[in-house]
Order: sequence, then C-alpha cells, then structure tokens
Amino acid sequence: MLDKTVVRNVLEKVKAEGREALTAPEGKLLCDAYGITVPQEGLAGSAEEAASLASEMGFPVVMKIVSPDILHKTEAGGVIVGVETEEEAKAGYDKIIANAKAYNAKADISGVQVQQMLTGGQEVIIGSVTDGSFGKLVAFGLGGILVEVLKDITFRLAPVTQEEALSMLDSVQAADMLKGVRGGDPVNREALADMIVRVSELVNDYPEISELDLNPVFATKDGAIAADVRIVVDFAQKAPRHRPSQDEIVTAMNKIMRPKAVAVIGASSEEGKIGNSVMKNLINGGYKGEIYPVHPKADEILGYKAYKSVKDVPGEIDTAIFAIPAKFVPGALTECGEKGIPGAVLIPSGFAEAGEPELQDEIVKIGRKYNVRLMGPNIYGFYYTPENLCATFCTAYDVKGSAALSSQSGGIGMAIIGFSRSAQMGVSAIVGLGNKSDIDEDDLLTFFEQDDNTKIIAQHCEDLKDGRAFAEVARRVSKKKPVVVLKAGRTSAGAKAASSHTGALAGNDKIYEDVFQQVGVIRARSLRQLLEFARGVPVLPTPKGENVVIITGAGGSGVLLSDACVDNGLELMSMPDDLDAAFRKFIPPFGAAGNPVDITGGEPPETYKNTIRLGLQDDRIHSLILGYWHTIVTPPMVFAKLVSEVKEEMAAKGIEKPIVASLAGDYEVEEASEYLYQHGIPAYPYSTELPVEVLGAKYKWARGAGLL
Amino acid sequence: MLDKTVVRNVLEKVKAEGREALTAPEGKLLCDAYGITVPQEGLAGSAEEAASLASEMGFPVVMKIVSPDILHKTEAGGVIVGVETEEEAKAGYDKIIANAKAYNAKADISGVQVQQMLTGGQEVIIGSVTDGSFGKLVAFGLGGILVEVLKDITFRLAPVTQEEALSMLDSVQAADMLKGVRGGDPVNREALADMIVRVSELVNDYPEISELDLNPVFATKDGAIAADVRIVVDFAQKAPRHRPSQDEIVTAMNKIMRPKAVAVIGASSEEGKIGNSVMKNLINGGYKGEIYPVHPKADEILGYKAYKSVKDVPGEIDTAIFAIPAKFVPGALTECGEKGIPGAVLIPSGFAEAGEPELQDEIVKIGRKYNVRLMGPNIYGFYYTPENLCATFCTAYDVKGSAALSSQSGGIGMAIIGFSRSAQMGVSAIVGLGNKSDIDEDDLLTFFEQDDNTKIIAQHCEDLKDGRAFAEVARRVSKKKPVVVLKAGRTSAGAKAASSHTGALAGNDKIYEDVFQQVGVIRARSLRQLLEFARGVPVLPTPKGENVVIITGAGGSGVLLSDACVDNGLELMSMPDDLDAAFRKFIPPFGAAGNPVDITGGEPPETYKNTIRLGLQDDRIHSLILGYWHTIVTPPMVFAKLVSEVKEEMAAKGIEKPIVASLAGDYEVEEASEYLYQHGIPAYPYSTELPVEVLGAKYKWARGAGLL
Repeated sequence: MLDKTVVRNVLEKVKAEGREALTAPEGKLLCDAYGITVPQEGLAGSAEEAASLASEMGFPVVMKIVSPDILHKTEAGGVIVGVETEEEAKAGYDKIIANAKAYNAKADISGVQVQQMLTGGQEVIIGSVTDGSFGKLVAFGLGGILVEVLKDITFRLAPVTQEEALSMLDSVQAADMLKGVRGGDPVNREALADMIVRVSELVNDYPEISELDLNPVFATKDGAIAADVRIVVDFAQKAPRHRPSQDEIVTAMNKIMRPKAVAVIGASSEEGKIGNSVMKNLINGGYKGEIYPVHPKADEILGYKAYKSVKDVPGEIDTAIFAIPAKFVPGALTECGEKGIPGAVLIPSGFAEAGEPELQDEIVKIGRKYNVRLMGPNIYGFYYTPENLCATFCTAYDVKGSAALSSQSGGIGMAIIGFSRSAQMGVSAIVGLGNKSDIDEDDLLTFFEQDDNTKIIAQHCEDLKDGRAFAEVARRVSKKKPVVVLKAGRTSAGAKAASSHTGALAGNDKIYEDVFQQVGVIRARSLRQLLEFARGVPVLPTPKGENVVIITGAGGSGVLLSDACVDNGLELMSMPDDLDAAFRKFIPPFGAAGNPVDITGGEPPETYKNTIRLGLQDDRIHSLILGYWHTIVTPPMVFAKLVSEVKEEMAAKGIEKPIVASLAGDYEVEEASEYLYQHGIPAYPYSTELPVEVLGAKYKWARGAGLL
Repeated sequence: MLDKTVVRNVLEKVKAEGREALTAPEGKLLCDAYGITVPQEGLAGSAEEAASLASEMGFPVVMKIVSPDILHKTEAGGVIVGVETEEEAKAGYDKIIANAKAYNAKADISGVQVQQMLTGGQEVIIGSVTDGSFGKLVAFGLGGILVEVLKDITFRLAPVTQEEALSMLDSVQAADMLKGVRGGDPVNREALADMIVRVSELVNDYPEISELDLNPVFATKDGAIAADVRIVVDFAQKAPRHRPSQDEIVTAMNKIMRPKAVAVIGASSEEGKIGNSVMKNLINGGYKGEIYPVHPKADEILGYKAYKSVKDVPGEIDTAIFAIPAKFVPGALTECGEKGIPGAVLIPSGFAEAGEPELQDEIVKIGRKYNVRLMGPNIYGFYYTPENLCATFCTAYDVKGSAALSSQSGGIGMAIIGFSRSAQMGVSAIVGLGNKSDIDEDDLLTFFEQDDNTKIIAQHCEDLKDGRAFAEVARRVSKKKPVVVLKAGRTSAGAKAASSHTGALAGNDKIYEDVFQQVGVIRARSLRQLLEFARGVPVLPTPKGENVVIITGAGGSGVLLSDACVDNGLELMSMPDDLDAAFRKFIPPFGAAGNPVDITGGEPPETYKNTIRLGLQDDRIHSLILGYWHTIVTPPMVFAKLVSEVKEEMAAKGIEKPIVASLAGDYEVEEASEYLYQHGIPAYPYSTELPVEVLGAKYKWARGAGLL
C-alpha cells in the first residue's frame, strides 16, 4: 500500500518553507512511499552493528562518518568504499571513528552510515516532466551520454500501465543495450517497467511535482535501484481548462455540424462580401434547413427574409455563422447567447492572431456564459457534406465521402479543398479551427467518432491547446476510426529552460511523436501525406494479418517497393515453398518467385490476373502491393480493369484484402491509376513510395486499434 | 618517411605462412611504419632502466614480467598496473622480479616490460573494409556501445585527405562527444584525423589488407593512441575491371549517343515487333542521320534499303541497335566488331537476368575483342533529344531540355518517360542500362559531363558494378553539374559475414550514403524525388549564399515551409532589423515579419509583389520560398503572373536568385503552378515539402561543388 500521508507531509513542508525542490532524504521518502527502490542504508552505532547492517543489505557497501561537525568527510578519512565482508565492515567502522576523532577530537559523532553500493548493470534514467499541453509525462532513457548527447529518450502520458512502461524500453534507439551487450546480462524488464509505472503514478497523484529525475537508475538482471532522486515542485497550479463532458460535446457538435436552421450574421446581397459568399454557398450548396440572414438594415437577402438580430428570428437556430467585423462580434454573440443558439462559427479575423487577445478573451467569456460553443475565430468556416452544408466563404464543395479533415490554418484548409476537388476525394467534412478559442481538435474527434458518415479523421494542427484532452479522446476514437495528424512546427520547438535533466531533454516534438504513438494517432510527415492518407486509408479494407506480398511486372519497381515496405514498417512475407511453387506456375522460368513475385515485363494480362488471384485466395497472404510495368502486351487500362475484376471476383467470395498499386509507364498510367482508385485500389503513377505509405498507414492504424 | 620495406616484409611472411591475419606485434610494426601511434613499450633489465623507460613514455605505466617460463603473469605476481612515479617503477621492478623468482626459481627471466598505460579520453574506432564495389574504405566511429549497438559509424573512400578525415568526426551521430561532454576536454581533432589519414593510406598502399581495426583508439586533448590493432589480409586479389580511359569513353559515347548512322539489327516491317517499333521511332522521332535496317531476308523496310548484315552496309555505322533474340546476338555482334562499329545497344533480354550469365560473358568478350561498347543487354534503349534520336521500342519522346536520366530497370525507365511527358519535363537523354554488361553509370557521367545539352544528371541504380570508378568520375562531374542518384535496394543489403568489427558494421547502404556525400552526389530518397529533382534543380539559378527567406500569405504554410527547411538543411536567415522594418512597411500591422515574412491572407497582388521584389533586391537574401494562399483578392493566376513579372524585372537588372513556391488553394493553383514552373519557378500545389526539397537539392549540389 502506498503511504500517501508521508508524501503529503513532505510536500506541505516544502511548500511551507517556500522551496522549489526536495532534499535528497525527502526524495527518498517519496520513493519509499511509492515503492521505488533506492539504495538501502542504515546508521551503525558500533562495529558489530555496521557488519550486521552491511550483511543484511548485501555487499559491497559504502561507509561514511555521520557528524554535524565533519563536513569534509573524505578529508577526515571518514569514507570507505567497496567494503566487501563483515570483517572489513567491522574494521572499517573502527577506522572511520578513529580517523574522525583524530581529525576533530571535539566532533559530535552520530555513528557511521552504511549504504548499499551500486555497481554494474546498465545505467538508465527515469523521469517526469509537466508539459504545458499534455500535463504529466513520464520519461525513460539510457543513462549517461546516450541521453545527454544523443537525446535518446522516450515519453508517455502519465500514468502508464505496465504494458506501456514495457513499450518504453523498446522505444529508445539503444534498446538493444537492455538486452545485454558484450556478453552482459539482460536487465530485468519487469522491474524497470514497474519503476516507471510507480514514478508515473507518483507524479500523477501529486500535480505539484513538476519535474522528477531518477538518474542514474542501475538496472541489472535482478532488479532496478534508483541511485539518485531529484524532485522539483511547483505549487502554483494553473486553472484547469474548461472541458464540457463528452455527452455535452456530442450534443452541441451535432447541432452545429448538422443544424436544422442557420443564421448568417452579416449576410449581404453585395457581391464580394464574405456575408454574400456564405449565403450563396448555403443556398447553392443545397442545404435543406432554414436559412436566416441577419442584417441591421436589409429586409431580404438573396430571396430570404432578413432580420435585424437573431433575437428577431421566430424559430430556433442551431448555428450562427458570423461574417461581421471583429469589433461587432461580442454584441452579436451575446444576442446569440440570449437566443439560446448552441454554436457560433466565427469567420472574422482581428482577434488573438492580430494582437487582440483581450477581444478574444471577451468572446470566450460570452460563449461560456451562454453555453455557446465557438468555432474560430479567424477561420474559413466549415463544410459538412451529408447535410449539403457549406458554412464558409470559400467555394462550395460537394463530393461526398468518408474523410473528415480539419486545419488550424486557412491556407492549409484551402489546400485541402483544392486537393479534394482535384483528386475527387470524397469528404464528410472540412473544418477550419483557426484560433481555437473554444472548439478544437478533440471536440471534432468526439463528433466524428459518432458520425456514421465519417470513416477517417485527418487533422492539421500547429499546437494542441489541451493535449491531454486530445490524447484521451484520440486514444478512444482511434480504436474505431483512423486518426491522422499533421503536426506542424515540428522543428521550431524552443527548448524551454528547465531545471531538471528530463525537462531539458523534453524537445516538444518528441513528446508529440511519442504521445501520438501511445494513443494510436497516425502521424503524417507532410501535407501531401495527410491528404493521401485521408484519401487512401478509408478505401482499403482492414488487413487480417501482417503478411504483405509484392507482385510486380518490373523488377526495378519490386526493389523500390521493398525499400518502401521497410521504411513503412511493413513485413514482406517470407514465401512458403508450396506458395512459391504455385506462383512459379504462372510466371516465366526466369521470373523470380519469392517476395517480390517478379512476373517479368512483357507478360500478358493473364499472368497479372493469375498471380493476383492467387495472392488474394491464399489465406497466408494478407495484403498485396502491385507493381505495374507499361507494355503494349498489357496496356495500363487493361491492367486497371483486370485488377478490379479479380478484386470483385474475390469480393463476391467474401475475400477482401488491401491492395495498392504503383504504375510505371507512359502518361496513360495516370488514367489507369484513377480508375483503380475509384475501384478501391489506391494507385499512383510514377511513384513507388505513395502506395506503400498509404498501406503502411492502414497497418499502423490497425495495429494501434488492436486489430492485428 | 613511411618505411614500406617493413610492411612488405611482414605481409610476405604472413602470405608465406598462409595466414589470414597479422599477429599483434606484426600489426604494431605496420602502425609504426605508417606513423600510427600505438602505446609505447620497452623491456627493462634493471630497476633504473624501468624507471627511465617509464619516465620517457610518461606515467602511468603497466609493468609485466617477460619470461618464456611464466605464462600466468598475474598469478605469478608479475603484473603491476597504474605505476605513477619513478620510485614506484623502481620498486615495481624489484617486486616483479622477486615475485617471479619466488613463483618459479628456475624461470628464465628476460626482464620487465614497461608499457604506456592508456586512461581517460574518448574511445573511438578507426578501421577499414574492402567493399566489392567501392574497394578500400576507411571507417570512423565512437567506441564501445555506440558502434556496437547504435551502429554509429561513417565511411569514406580511401585514401582520404586531412579535410575529409576531419569531416568524418562530424559525420557520426554522437559527434558532440568529441567536443567534450560533462566538462571533459575536447579531443585533438587534428591528431584523430591524422590517424584516419594514415590508416587510409596504409590500406590503399597494400590492397591485400582487406580489413583493419584500431579498436579502441584513445582520443584525448593531446592526441590519439591506438590501443589494439587487428589486420586481416586477403592475398587473392580479383582481376581489376576493364576501364577504358576517360578520353576513350568520351569518344565512344559521343559516337553512340550522337551517331551519324545507325543500324537496326532485326529491323522489321511487321507491326508489333520490337524491330518495327525501333525503326518507327527513329523515323518518326526525326533522326537526321543514316538509318540502315538489317534483316536476313528483307530488301526494304519502311522505305529504307535493308541489308543482310551490317558488313554489307556501304558507309560507316556508329550505333547498332539490336532487336533480335538473345541467341543471335553473339553472331551479329561479331559482325559489328568486324565492321568497326563502336557501340551496340542491346535491347534483347535473355542474358544474366534470365539465368544465362555465360551468354552475357560471351558478348562481353566479343565487345572487348573488337572494342565495341555495349549498352545493356535487357534494356528499352535510349533517347537523345538534341539529335532527335529515339533508339528504343518505347514511344517516342521529344520534349527537349537539360535533364539526362538513366535507369537500371525498364519499369523505372517507363516511369521516367511517363513523368517527363506528363510534367512536360525537357530532357536531353533517357538511357536504359539494364544488365550493365559494359556501359554503366560512370560512362554516362563522363559523356554527360562534356555534353552541353545536359545540365543535370539523374540516375536510378540498384547497384554499381564499379563503385570506385563511379565515385571518381562523380566527384569530378558533380563539381560542374548536379548528379542525383536514386539507389534502390537500400534496405535489402545483406550483412555479409565479416571477420572484423568494422566489417560487420559495414551495412552496404551506409557506404553508399557516405560515399555519395563524399563525392558530391545528391541522393534522391524516392522515385518521385529523383524525377522532381531532375525537373526542378536545373530550372533554378545557383544560389550565392545560404540565407533563405520565406514569404507567405498563409501563416500555416509558413510553419510547414519552415519545418521543411530544417528537414532539407536550409538555413532560415535571421532577419536584420532594417530589413525587418522594410518588410513591415508592406504588410498589415498584425502580419509577422521576421522569417517567415507572413504577409497575411487576403492581401492584394501589390503586397506579394512588393515583398518579393524586396526579397530579390536585398543582397543579404539568397533564395526565396513563397507560400501562396488562394483568395479572391489575389487569384492563383494573378499570383503566378506577378511573381514571374517581378522575377523578370529583377533579371533585367542582373538579379537572379532561386525562387520556389508552394500554392495552397482550390484546383486553379495547379494551372498557376504549371505557369510558374514554365517561368523558372518550381512550384507545387497542395505541397509544402516538394518546393523546399528541390531548393534543398540545389543547395546540396552547390555546397558539394564548392560554390557556397
């Protein structure tokens, strides 16, 4: 049982004394309370006692004089290291006492401290930091130069389970060192993980512990002992961010995203005005709910009766879209609150991003007061295609599909829209989050989780206002639907001044990297990847296993596709003999079976067809990567159609596996790739990387969701 | 002066004795001969001599009994470590002798060995391996776990210059350790580099040294000492590959690539035959030289007089294109040789790739005998657009430009053709290398180096038959023209069994990585990158300095572009105050100057124009990255045209800087990107990565070529 009284007492004392750090003995008390093993020690009052203490804790031991009058213990001959036997301990006691008396005859001697001496094993570091966004994190790294020079450290949200802690041991670059190098013993992984768990619980239980370092921890085959503990505290806790319950979020977001009626505040008949564009998009987009233009003077706008205020509107309004200058927002928002409108879409800029944080604070307060959820400000608005809703001043978008995308930045939002239109990517929603004064990524996750129109959620963000909330929701949602995030600002992360080791090592981006991994979020490395994942991942069925087989007409593509498999964490199936023989039946004698299956160039459609069919039929194969080589014998569209046919033939028999394709050839492969994509096979011309990246993302998701 | 006689004598002895490795004393002799510092040692016959030896080499020293009769020196009390003073040395001598006599009174005692004792400093490893393709390589890594567990090691072609050796110290991940960590001293970089140079010269001078390890080397602030040396030899030298001189290559390749007359062996009138496609491509491609179809029976093919054999052709022939089955190639090739044709383009497959290495050996011998250079076999042929020459059975390609591409694989060749056509990328040449029985990448480099139609050389390869030759040529050519290589098979590199440390660490791909870097080759990470670099890099002028500035309408793009700059080794200029103020004059008050210069969304064309003009005019800025955000105020084509105008306006004043652009917006940005590309500005829709990668490649080249 954890003895929390001890911890509370220590922390109260530190607080009362206005200190920012614990002393070593105080640190030890906390460790003891949480079962974090530290070196054993005891005070001996006699030679016999020293010998028996040492014997109990196990040799070797260190012996040190304990006297308030002797500060320079070594100088006084008051320290003996490497005491190996009971006899040495007894003799050591006598010698230390004698030396001490010789050094200072008047010294008040309390006795001799006997402490377990740590030797051998692997030095590691276990620590904790408090991140502004993610809160308490626990860290693990290999001691000494590996963390200091190579910054080889990994983080997890605290608290962690034993399983998560074990995963940390494998997440450092030098993980092999824990398995025993140069003939050494492997460390006791369970003991090390247990210590990580205990640290994570300690910092989680006491928010005032802002940083913690166990450095070094000696990890051996028998266990783990923390040789030194350093704990930094911060009693000035910041006020927790307002977080509605998940049910409240679902209710509000459903009103906002699927409104029965919308008001356009600042609606306009004048071409070129934002309020005009929004009106037109609502109307031309085919939105079927009520549309209420709001304007101080107009009676009618684009054929709709206009109102002076939302309060004049007779019916209920779910979403108010703002297209008025920033300075008028607080007044209009208050009216929305009084009207009981649950959501405000704040297109205007001129708030925090423009050096007006007070104005933003003001609207946040109004929103909170009346329980109006705010999207933005400083956004392009949003699209929700199942309702034909284009609540934006950008051009309308109407290709319905299953990808829900969002962006923090308007520019990236425009790129999403452009790419979607160009690639004919079906979307369920595109949402601008802008300044994220209220609604942010986790609100969207919560909504899209229960939105049957959405199969994948892809988000661009520069920061997470509440990383902890995001992580908690993402962990749950990613089990059901892939969550892909492009985290921008990876490299500009300023290293904050920090007073502990672990703190200094906490490069912001590494935290995002590790937490995303922990909660099952797929990280996109580039804007194009975010977009391609959003397009390709929902097209693919979930694989039933890790065995990937490449079937290629071009040996050269096969090599590049293999490289891409390794880069994307995909496992090239090692081909069983019988299957190898089965493939060989279909390919020329000089073709290469094994994996990749190289059917060689110049083969007729039947060869592609037979080998792909075999790949789909055999239960041991879980996914196919196709490499097509343009020849006149099997032209691009012939290939595209035969692949689709085989896929459908197998689907009719209940066989569905992910298939992706790379098409090498003249420009006709572009049309063929489009055709394949439309038939459920993500396919790319002139690229061996993209198809494998998309398949890799599907696998990452399936693994994170526990489906593999 | 290096004493080579000693080395030769040692190696002869090892060879005579049929050994594969040198003994430690033999290794020391080689080290001494090449000035590689090893611990000093000497044999003392008296206490005084021991003291004086120790004093000369510097304390601490180790002392050891030397007696053929005492094998277990420690057991005999015959070893003392950590001898610190002359007195200790004297006493140590006497004690060791006394102990030895007590241990074995009859022992024949030669004296006491005094050896320099190495302590402290940084342990590093210096070694050498012999690579099948690159030959002698020198390696450097940090000792102990860093090389063993993290494989943190770097390679260079041997021999290296002092400067190259110094660059190795910065090329390991843990480079900071050499600069002194935890308050330690930095190592003596010059001394360490000097040792690397000496090792590289030793292995270069003696090809029979197949592997060498100095492990560990103790590097301190004062110098470097190799504590242990291990040398493995292999006297079975493989025959050097035939390498024509650079002049011979230039002469032959010019004949082949720019022939005055070509023969098509296996020309055919029959639709669908390869010999028919080749003929049509030559004719329809617009080739102006003579075309001689060769066919055993036909009198005329597609309007050209046909011949039974090349030997019947009245005029000279420069290039013979083979479109006949493999088994007929040797005969026809012999005729080509007898006719004195300098080049054969061997389209047929059915050689080494199809399990017929003997047939390939046969044609190589014929080629060598008659001095016919062979392209292929197993290729699609080649294109050389300045001569309107499509010597291939693939579709014709005629967009002239400055990129010369080649591929080892036909599939990748087709992707090159397709991408080129789709992107309207002008090329000077596209060449298939296939089995590379003779002509390979370095022959092409040598030709394209002196080909004024070529400004960039982009090559796909799976291996280099002669990496050493490639590296030597690439080192020279890359100073003049960018050389980009996509090396496939990065991850399949089988770790060969090796008997030394360095050998075991030599992951094949790491060698390619380091050698490419050493000789100035830009490595493409993906097929798409190879293609985009070939398209974009020659479009850009060479930058005059490292200062890159981002000007963006979308803050979100600015963040992603900044990330991409870091990823691609580009330096975001830190903005001087006066320049910051100058930019601020053009942008809204809430826009962010600094770098990126965020002009904010919704700005009119003038704002883009003014800031871009300023960026081009100011001498301190060397390159611009533009982030465009689609708005109705500045539509995509308006942006594209204004950028081109400003660029031309500045060009008229003699100002030329690299500009690349990322366009975020609706699909109209695709047309705008095309327009920009055609006006010398590599521009990409929906991607913040690609433009920066292209600029990064230009910088890598300029740095490697010594232009920055």
